[in-house]
Amino acid sequence: MASNVETIRHSASHVLAEAVLKLYPGTKFGIGPAIEDGFYYDFQLPAPIQPEDLPAIEKEMRRIIASGAEFVRKEVSKEEARKLFADQPFKLELIEALEEGSISLYEQDGFVDLCRGPHVATTREIRPDAFKLRAVAGAYWRGDEKRPMLTRIYAYAFGSKADLEAHLKMLEEAEKRDCRKLGKELDLFSTHEEAGPGLVYWHPKGGRFRVALENWWRDEHYKNGYEVLFTPHIGKSWLWETSGHLSFYKEGMYSPMEIDEDDYYIKPMNCPFHIMVYKSTGHSYRDLPLRWAELGTVYRYERSGTLHGLMRVRGFTQDDAHIICTPEQIEDEIAEVLRFSLYMHRTLGFKEIKAYLATKPKGDGSVGDPAHWATALESLKKAVEKEGLAYEIDEGGGAFYGPKIDLKVKDAIGREWQLTTIQFDFNLPERFQMEYVDSDGQKKRPYMVHRALLGSIERFFGVYLEHTAGAFPVWLCPEQVAVIPVGEAFMDYAKKVAAELKSVGVRTKAMLSDERMNAKIRDAQNQKIPYMLVVGQKEMDEGAVSIRYRDGRQENGVSLADFKAKILEKIAAKSLEA
Amino acid sequence: MASNVETIRHSASHVLAEAVLKLYPGTKFGIGPAIEDGFYYDFQLPAPIQPEDLPAIEKEMRRIIASGAEFVRKEVSKEEARKLFADQPFKLELIEALEEGSISLYEQDGFVDLCRGPHVATTREIRPDAFKLRAVAGAYWRGDEKRPMLTRIYAYAFGSKADLEAHLKMLEEAEKRDCRKLGKELDLFSTHEEAGPGLVYWHPKGGRFRVALENWWRDEHYKNGYEVLFTPHIGKSWLWETSGHLSFYKEGMYSPMEIDEDDYYIKPMNCPFHIMVYKSTGHSYRDLPLRWAELGTVYRYERSGTLHGLMRVRGFTQDDAHIICTPEQIEDEIAEVLRFSLYMHRTLGFKEIKAYLATKPKGDGSVGDPAHWATALESLKKAVEKEGLAYEIDEGGGAFYGPKIDLKVKDAIGREWQLTTIQFDFNLPERFQMEYVDSDGQKKRPYMVHRALLGSIERFFGVYLEHTAGAFPVWLCPEQVAVIPVGEAFMDYAKKVAAELKSVGVRTKAMLSDERMNAKIRDAQNQKIPYMLVVGQKEMDEGAVSIRYRDGRQENGVSLADFKAKILEKIAAKSLEA
Repeated sequence: MASNVETIRHSASHVLAEAVLKLYPGTKFGIGPAIEDGFYYDFQLPAPIQPEDLPAIEKEMRRIIASGAEFVRKEVSKEEARKLFADQPFKLELIEALEEGSISLYEQDGFVDLCRGPHVATTREIRPDAFKLRAVAGAYWRGDEKRPMLTRIYAYAFGSKADLEAHLKMLEEAEKRDCRKLGKELDLFSTHEEAGPGLVYWHPKGGRFRVALENWWRDEHYKNGYEVLFTPHIGKSWLWETSGHLSFYKEGMYSPMEIDEDDYYIKPMNCPFHIMVYKSTGHSYRDLPLRWAELGTVYRYERSGTLHGLMRVRGFTQDDAHIICTPEQIEDEIAEVLRFSLYMHRTLGFKEIKAYLATKPKGDGSVGDPAHWATALESLKKAVEKEGLAYEIDEGGGAFYGPKIDLKVKDAIGREWQLTTIQFDFNLPERFQMEYVDSDGQKKRPYMVHRALLGSIERFFGVYLEHTAGAFPVWLCPEQVAVIPVGEAFMDYAKKVAAELKSVGVRTKAMLSDERMNAKIRDAQNQKIPYMLVVGQKEMDEGAVSIRYRDGRQENGVSLADFKAKILEKIAAKSLEA
Repeated sequence: MASNVETIRHSASHVLAEAVLKLYPGTKFGIGPAIEDGFYYDFQLPAPIQPEDLPAIEKEMRRIIASGAEFVRKEVSKEEARKLFADQPFKLELIEALEEGSISLYEQDGFVDLCRGPHVATTREIRPDAFKLRAVAGAYWRGDEKRPMLTRIYAYAFGSKADLEAHLKMLEEAEKRDCRKLGKELDLFSTHEEAGPGLVYWHPKGGRFRVALENWWRDEHYKNGYEVLFTPHIGKSWLWETSGHLSFYKEGMYSPMEIDEDDYYIKPMNCPFHIMVYKSTGHSYRDLPLRWAELGTVYRYERSGTLHGLMRVRGFTQDDAHIICTPEQIEDEIAEVLRFSLYMHRTLGFKEIKAYLATKPKGDGSVGDPAHWATALESLKKAVEKEGLAYEIDEGGGAFYGPKIDLKVKDAIGREWQLTTIQFDFNLPERFQMEYVDSDGQKKRPYMVHRALLGSIERFFGVYLEHTAGAFPVWLCPEQVAVIPVGEAFMDYAKKVAAELKSVGVRTKAMLSDERMNAKIRDAQNQKIPYMLVVGQKEMDEGAVSIRYRDGRQENGVSLADFKAKILEKIAAKSLEA
């Protein structure tokens, strides 16, 4: 089905081109590929167009679709292609870049385009109610700002009306959940263009989420045999020359700072620092495996145009770990790290998790013994199979220094997000000459695996904010309880309730302003506080509270002691539901 | 008494100079001041000397002391002084720098030195058994590396033999506790010259201490009305121009990194970032006071010669907080922050704590309304008086932007360490135009106070390591329990004991190697593990453990359940004793 939709999208882009040529004679054509949720086509138009012009283009497309024109493939020589596209400079440029031999074209309804295909049989296979032109944007030819600026028309396209509608609904929902919007509404974080874009400032309520998350993360790491390190944010050029980052990762790093005539770089990775700790003493096979974790904040260059809320930033805190072990231990270690990752994601409420395995790049663009690559890949496969996890293999998609597994989780509105990466490294142990003394007294090179479980704390916060729409599980809520007196006479009782909950560590807000009760409830609901405790005469007389849940449920006259026991149990169990 | 010792030290330095001239005729003299624990004198000697030469100099000093020569003050004109010191080029240079008028000299035993005094009456007041020449070092004349290198002789000097001996004993003890030495022995941290000096790498066991400390720190801050922020480590030059750090603190900052043609600086302070969070929304007087804390890692330039273990570093994590409040709230806020600081230090076991108040600099080298300075100083004084704290006032010693209190704690061997600083800032609220809307509807400028409680996590770790000699209170111990089987037959029981303790969060190490029991006990003692649980037949039969404490105490046949309850209670109570 997936390739079918892609074919439909691709064919629809030809129909768009035909419609545009009809309405705007003299148009020159760029390219028109299928994309994730539809397609686009780049045009050089005789006159600028606006979003208001899109309905007319859609109408013309529907006319072409209704005609039921066939998509006919033709093969021509390069010379013939040149003649056919003589008045299409961008196509000519594409033709020149093709190898000699036959070139394929597709024609429908008299409109011919340069194309590898495949396409649908007739335009009728494109459902007229399953596509929608969505936007007009500028795009440089070939993405090069020195080349002409073309007009790009974007469209959504699916196999059925229902799929398109589901997608539009998802987008509408995604817009409501946008982490930038929720971040502001819930006062969780900010970024500041004037102080540097892509750098996240965690506000008090964001800080409470982060502290709760990190405390849990550290506890679980200790329980699972990890140790926690803290390492510097800067290192002398020697470190980055030795690691090789200055040769193979320079474009991701910021320019150096000078200290005492030495160059220092702010770290884009934590690994060389963990290796320095490893090398500060000798190691025996008895010490291995080592599992060393760090919430290490790294800084990497991203083009300013690609920065986006919490999702794409320039400074982020990797929930990093390095596993250093003997070849004999690697299989168990990989199985263990995968099991641990799944446990963490499931605790956070992600139900659908998929694995992506990337294997050795083709050719000689990789380092390390082929036998080690084979062992590594085997251990990755065994681990996903042991966990019964769905997985895809990306042949040749590994980094030059080792194969990896990425885990993607599906969020509440069906989007996939990559969180975990488990990555072998055959490069750094060699470059830093890492060693251990084996049981036979020989010095050997350990295996090293990089692993980030949530990926980065900032991006995870963004994903989780959009997944939950800000309605976090109770244990992660910045504010867990709002106490709302029905009137002034119950302020003292509201304070007493709040104080009692605070004293056992529940994050509680007593809403004591002179606003009306309903305004307070609305405010607490907007802030996604899971429990609103409304207190009046009856509650005060009985030492009770009436609970309004975030999801609309209500429970009256619950004794304060019972509520306290209930919420503490929910928190301890990391329950997903309030 | 303090000035007496200083006078003795100063007089002893003249005696040293006389002795050196006697033994090394032709010596030229630099300066010879009293210092913290003795004195030094800088000489240009006709031939180099070695530490082996010091006893002969000491002997000559004792001869002079025994002579009972009087110290006689003389006043001469500048012209006469020039003649008297005609063959002493360094003294001539000092004379030239003096103002016209009479110049004071001191003479003892025929030796004349340029000196403001005062001195003891006769050399007999210097106790021959209360001083000790300790070292020879090179020192540039006037500290200027372009001037001649002189020979500096250092000495300890006290009022009595007992004081000298106590000091030497303290130094010996300090050497054993040196954080660099203990850091290595206990495998807590390392620094790496090749990757950048003055940058601390926390090893697994150091990390456990830090996690325990920081968890407690965050809990207490939440309990005491603080919120925890997380802010970036870098900021665009706009931020540091606005804050003024680029004009008044540039020498403490590293050179900029370039990102997209903008200059970014790694932060030497957290304050501008907290101000950005403050300014991201409007504030009413109802929101105040705000208490915003951050464990913020900052980077500052320190000359490489001054770097020292954990005590003086280039990257450190301030346990920072900013209090933003109305003028009406400032007195309570200062009292509260002082009370909180004392509570934290006392929990950590510091008993003697002293306050140092620094007031407005003289002249016009300060910013802010004088009335605000007066209010601020008043609130600082009231706070220390309320706590009944001993304090000294450093008149004019405040920063240009506000007065402050520093707290110094006395460690187990009598040394004072500054930890807390509570610092008003009348500069940044103005520069960043911080505002709140008061109850009268007017926009007003809030007060802002910087506060670091432990100072920095790295330096505090150093101080605490030296204070406790690595024998941390149980709740902060990286390893709280070592389980040691008396022989191989009890390995399984040892594992069971360890597993049971680990399952309730006790940091436990089962020592299961084939080493002998006594070697394991010695090892655990060296690692300062507070509880060593020795298990053999009797313990296994009874479900018990025999406890050996770090301090040598022993307790046999304690039921495992009782031990578990005991250690959990010690941890919960943050008990200082095991």
